[in-house]
Amino acid sequence: MNVLEVIGRKRDGQAHTPEEIALLLEGYLAGRIPDYQVAAWLMAVVTRGMTGGETLALTNAMVASGEVMDLSPIPGFKVDKHSTGGVGDKVTLIAGPLAAACGVPVPKLSGRGLAHTGGTLDKLESVPGLRVELTPEEFVEQVRSVGLAVAAQSPRMVPADKLLYALRDVTATVPSIPLIASSVMSKKLAAGADGIVLDVKAGRGAFMADLAGAVELAREMVGIGEGAGRRTVALVTAMDSPLGLTIGNALEVAEALEVLAGGGDAELREVSIRVAAEMCRLAGVERDPALAIADGSGRERFERMLAAQGGRLSDGLPVAPVQLPVVALTAGWVASIDALEVGYASLELGAGRLRKGDPIDSAAGIVIKRQVGDRVEAGEPLAVLHAASAELIELASPRLLRAWRMVAEPVERPPHVLARVDRASPTLTAQ
Amino acid sequence: MNVLEVIGRKRDGQAHTPEEIALLLEGYLAGRIPDYQVAAWLMAVVTRGMTGGETLALTNAMVASGEVMDLSPIPGFKVDKHSTGGVGDKVTLIAGPLAAACGVPVPKLSGRGLAHTGGTLDKLESVPGLRVELTPEEFVEQVRSVGLAVAAQSPRMVPADKLLYALRDVTATVPSIPLIASSVMSKKLAAGADGIVLDVKAGRGAFMADLAGAVELAREMVGIGEGAGRRTVALVTAMDSPLGLTIGNALEVAEALEVLAGGGDAELREVSIRVAAEMCRLAGVERDPALAIADGSGRERFERMLAAQGGRLSDGLPVAPVQLPVVALTAGWVASIDALEVGYASLELGAGRLRKGDPIDSAAGIVIKRQVGDRVEAGEPLAVLHAASAELIELASPRLLRAWRMVAEPVERPPHVLARVDRASPTLTAQ
Repeated sequence: MNVLEVIGRKRDGQAHTPEEIALLLEGYLAGRIPDYQVAAWLMAVVTRGMTGGETLALTNAMVASGEVMDLSPIPGFKVDKHSTGGVGDKVTLIAGPLAAACGVPVPKLSGRGLAHTGGTLDKLESVPGLRVELTPEEFVEQVRSVGLAVAAQSPRMVPADKLLYALRDVTATVPSIPLIASSVMSKKLAAGADGIVLDVKAGRGAFMADLAGAVELAREMVGIGEGAGRRTVALVTAMDSPLGLTIGNALEVAEALEVLAGGGDAELREVSIRVAAEMCRLAGVERDPALAIADGSGRERFERMLAAQGGRLSDGLPVAPVQLPVVALTAGWVASIDALEVGYASLELGAGRLRKGDPIDSAAGIVIKRQVGDRVEAGEPLAVLHAASAELIELASPRLLRAWRMVAEPVERPPHVLARVDRASPTLTAQ
Repeated sequence: MNVLEVIGRKRDGQAHTPEEIALLLEGYLAGRIPDYQVAAWLMAVVTRGMTGGETLALTNAMVASGEVMDLSPIPGFKVDKHSTGGVGDKVTLIAGPLAAACGVPVPKLSGRGLAHTGGTLDKLESVPGLRVELTPEEFVEQVRSVGLAVAAQSPRMVPADKLLYALRDVTATVPSIPLIASSVMSKKLAAGADGIVLDVKAGRGAFMADLAGAVELAREMVGIGEGAGRRTVALVTAMDSPLGLTIGNALEVAEALEVLAGGGDAELREVSIRVAAEMCRLAGVERDPALAIADGSGRERFERMLAAQGGRLSDGLPVAPVQLPVVALTAGWVASIDALEVGYASLELGAGRLRKGDPIDSAAGIVIKRQVGDRVEAGEPLAVLHAASAELIELASPRLLRAWRMVAEPVERPPHVLARVDRASPTLTAQ
């Protein structure tokens, strides 16, 4: 079978064999199959879809395109955690240490922020001296000794994903559940953990705006993980409003430390404990992660991890020279805070990047003073903006102010965890 | 709107505006939009389809990409004729002269053969000295003086079609009714005639194997022609078995001359008269083209055309040095002759080309001795093969023999014209 026949099968709505998918992917990586043929195939996949079996085969072929992390020197059931990306999402920085403190080895390879969403590596790098570029040996050794490491993925892992994603980005073929799921899961499978807890965000500030799409993506990813022999569970969580009270790299590390010390935003604390509990459950660990907050072992684990990667928390996190509030123009209750607008305002303040490789300002960001459900009087601060200059804050303020939607009646803060998907989920087993 | 948004609209099943289509096509022609983006868009079109309005807009944008033939110096209602391609299809060489003899100016730009289908230009060039590369001035002048000219399309006409077709060919995006229809009709519209008679082939030897697809293609093309202000009518004709008794360039010219002289295969004569009658009807000419056979004016018109283009029929058509029969292994009635196998056998004999630009042998080909419906005894010749060597004939014979399907009972030759589509066709007006 040649490449045109393979493309033609998907064009006509047929299912690929694993061999067909490998033929395409290997040929593309080797430079034998040109961009335009893969672009046509990607569009056929977007419009015709793929079965769970095809998506698993694509993911396996992507994993096989590069190096795979060998975690076998680490004893125990290793659990990874992944978020599809949101605004103010520092759950990894809290749930990871909590699970590790409960005895779950947590080997986590992470990414950088792009557009309105932040990235765990950028957040960690706001700690003076901290390194995220660990060798595989350093990474494995740290998980053995500290129970937790968060590092950058090697560029030699899943090269097919980088290539495919770059092409999808310029051919309008990004929005496809099977393609998104295989992209995420190929990196998780290559990272080598035995169990994977996925945090799939749904809402204005997330990649998936609607709940149905997020649940479908969660099912697809759980199907891939379980199909590849990894225990996998997904929580679908709300990303209409930012998570917690801070957006920005150093600000979010500080907030994570605060939550690990028993303070901070209640919703952020609850969801972090929930994610850590899912990690413990996969590993067969029965300890309640909330106890690792109460006894300080979670925070201690986080500080040991930062130190192991060269971080000097004692030097202090960077602080922005200019900090100015935006104030409410009218009184009312906060019905919602548009996470997308907050994300873009944070980007304008210097906390994020529009293009890969752009520099970021670790100290820049936003501290929310009135969350969803809070009462606000006119003239009270809604948030405080942190940036390198008053000009940047002036630029970002109108957008940030627009994010707050106020109503005349008291409102309840909506639920944060919207759904849970595991291999026993009815619609998953029905597939 | 940028190119990714345009591609995204078709990906999501939305209809393009004419401006969106022009943006894509102009950007591609100018080299601003890369192959991979157009490939993704083409696949979205194949899988999502296009409305009649979009297809017309695409066709118009393709016409606008190059030069357009100005036929205004020719008085009268000019009628073009086009076949989607078949095996043994020499209808243009008969119907064109008949219509011209009836008083219809026939300006015909034509193409070359590829794979198993022949091309009118190749057939004409088997006449010694004949030129198909006419300047626009020569072409117009010949239609004025002779009433008929058949020439090659200028490479400066519809460059977008060449570019798009080359990309479709390597991205598995050929099978799409809107794309096929706009490709054909862009060339017809650029050729400038007032009326267009389409012969859409359906069957084993045609681009469209099934009747439903051929009728849909016919409707789409009639919709484009009428939408662009040209009177357009389509006949859907059978291409399960070869048309007439010859396949091969010089052989088909000789057969056309024979039919114009009142002889030849009855089916070929009837369908040629039918096509000429449709051409006359569009032009408002009431003369019966059958009379142009009876009085010899059709043949005279054809010979004047050949002479006007430099052809010297008196030098004789080329004759193959080796001519050998294939004989029936069993007795019976001929139920069908697989046009695709015959086309490939003819290609193997040297009468056609697999790749553009390959040389062809004008004298090579096949003369059918037993057509569908004929009685055959074992040992009687089914066909005579013409080629440059006995080796070529030996190579092609087994395939040719396979083409004949024999049955034990007498069979009727099936109808040749399967459907007629014009602007008044019920399903067309219902669109």
